[in-house]
Amino acid sequence: MQPAKPRIVVDAMGGDFGPEVVVPGALSAARKDNLNLLLVGNEQEIEKALASQKHKNIDIEIAHAPEVVGMSEKPSDVLRKKKNSSIQVAFSLVREGKGQGVVSAGNSGASLACGMFTLGRIKGVERPALASILPSEKGPVILIDVGANVECKSYHLVQFGLMADVFARSVLHVQKPKIGILTIGEEDDKGNNLVRETVKLFKMSSLNFVGNIEGRDFFTGKADVIVCDGFVGNVSLKLMEGLAISLFKILKEEVNKSWLARLGFLLGIGALKRFSRRIDYAEYGGAPLLGLNGIGIVCHGSSNSKAIGNAVLMAGEFIRNGANQLLIDGLGANKDISIFGKKALPGLASR
Amino acid sequence: MQPAKPRIVVDAMGGDFGPEVVVPGALSAARKDNLNLLLVGNEQEIEKALASQKHKNIDIEIAHAPEVVGMSEKPSDVLRKKKNSSIQVAFSLVREGKGQGVVSAGNSGASLACGMFTLGRIKGVERPALASILPSEKGPVILIDVGANVECKSYHLVQFGLMADVFARSVLHVQKPKIGILTIGEEDDKGNNLVRETVKLFKMSSLNFVGNIEGRDFFTGKADVIVCDGFVGNVSLKLMEGLAISLFKILKEEVNKSWLARLGFLLGIGALKRFSRRIDYAEYGGAPLLGLNGIGIVCHGSSNSKAIGNAVLMAGEFIRNGANQLLIDGLGANKDISIFGKKALPGLASR
Repeated sequence: MQPAKPRIVVDAMGGDFGPEVVVPGALSAARKDNLNLLLVGNEQEIEKALASQKHKNIDIEIAHAPEVVGMSEKPSDVLRKKKNSSIQVAFSLVREGKGQGVVSAGNSGASLACGMFTLGRIKGVERPALASILPSEKGPVILIDVGANVECKSYHLVQFGLMADVFARSVLHVQKPKIGILTIGEEDDKGNNLVRETVKLFKMSSLNFVGNIEGRDFFTGKADVIVCDGFVGNVSLKLMEGLAISLFKILKEEVNKSWLARLGFLLGIGALKRFSRRIDYAEYGGAPLLGLNGIGIVCHGSSNSKAIGNAVLMAGEFIRNGANQLLIDGLGANKDISIFGKKALPGLASR
Repeated sequence: MQPAKPRIVVDAMGGDFGPEVVVPGALSAARKDNLNLLLVGNEQEIEKALASQKHKNIDIEIAHAPEVVGMSEKPSDVLRKKKNSSIQVAFSLVREGKGQGVVSAGNSGASLACGMFTLGRIKGVERPALASILPSEKGPVILIDVGANVECKSYHLVQFGLMADVFARSVLHVQKPKIGILTIGEEDDKGNNLVRETVKLFKMSSLNFVGNIEGRDFFTGKADVIVCDGFVGNVSLKLMEGLAISLFKILKEEVNKSWLARLGFLLGIGALKRFSRRIDYAEYGGAPLLGLNGIGIVCHGSSNSKAIGNAVLMAGEFIRNGANQLLIDGLGANKDISIFGKKALPGLASR
């Protein structure tokens, strides 16, 4: 049974802006979807951020955590030396049952490490991965991994595909998710060694593997899930953000060069706003850490309140529909998860 | 001495559309910049494509090559088995002095292999690389490698940086090119093993190394040259293209939903056209193969006539300003090129 009114544990110190931006975002989500909050971090700063906001009907608890994790701190150092950091405390609170899921816009490596250390992994999962849900011409596309695992083996990539498959079925309600691998060229023998090896494994799996996905197929709906290692995934994610921002900047420069274009821009502002909404990463809010035994949503460090709010909404939705249990059940029912694990792999050839 | 009127050897069979698209593109460039052409491929098809075009004042030669290389053929197979393919013949004609540079929109791996086999490499260069010249907010940015070398070692990446540095100075006239490495995160210890190792080498080099470049810095002018392996580079390049195309499609859909927005769009059409021109890959035409001992420009398989034309113009410009010799001289003057080679590298620690 999932709680009717989940309590989301929010790392109030995470992100580039801290409580000032995180708290209003969390409050708006709590109001919208009837959620309880547990805000973790410097109590004084959280109280200050709360003071400037309306929150009469929201059930808010605060847990003081005196330490803050910097964006460049090593996950292993955080685990050992910062036991009182907001991110570490947040996951501990979920383990103690004080809340049902964590949202953090902090150091994503540290979030992963603290999540794994505190909540553990789903059985059979070698490495949890960060799944980003991106807009495309035909609805959401899952890109996995976007930064949790920088060096990967082929069986890690297959497991990312398996986790995203279950996630797409159970949580996004995609019937038979099309799983592709991000690479260069369309043929099986294209790509690098890692990709070629992974393609072989994917073909032996039970997944609906649709083959190679080139960057230009990213937004056309050719695949519902696009698998890659965390280095390529993170480079890709940030490239997309950067390109979208620069395109708008250049468009604005050109529009401002003539009053006719400016007038046109004003007339089309409604369409432009709808356009922005369709491509705005903040609409999707955060990236779930799939494979963690519990719910952890990681947001971009530069998240605004809207993005934080949407991540909190995502956490609430995941808790209400039992996303974690769906993932456990889905992976448990699919024997591929153990077949494509590190230990089982050497026997694969005999299949 | 460079020839006053260079002859560009054009692989007329290259690309998704063949002579129909390649020939008009080459002709328009020849007309614009007073160039001679040597068109290589199926003579009949080339004649047919020429028949529908005006070309009275252009000096055109045709070299018949009966074989065509498919986009998915292995470079090694092409070298061994397709000696009469348009791409292989094109490079041979340059070696024989019948022309001064090759433009092809065909299989880029095969272009590289034929170029290396026929023209050789510049002294000290381990691996030629494909450099893409991309638009950014602050003018052109060189991304190297975009697909010639899928598996790379750290010293290859440093050599890519060295080649692009000379190219940016000599050909693009950038005073002190800022060299960055494409990775995730800003700190030195971020990225994967390849990147971390390469950063150490870059710091020992004489280059103006500006450190880590994340995808979001791509278009802001933080670096003039962005180095990566050919897998990441090709994924990135195609992602950018795909994103730009999809953004336009989504924008169009939204604009078509209201007549007000459509009117606005019409008023702003001039600005939109200037915008498109600033971000259109076809404006830059092709990617030079740096490190080859000669001039080879590789175009996108899906190139339109405009892109082919711009690649032919690029070849003409490179020949006229002696780009290849500038690269040879520049690399020869910089002892890093031999220091950061495979054989020399073991001694590096003693520097």
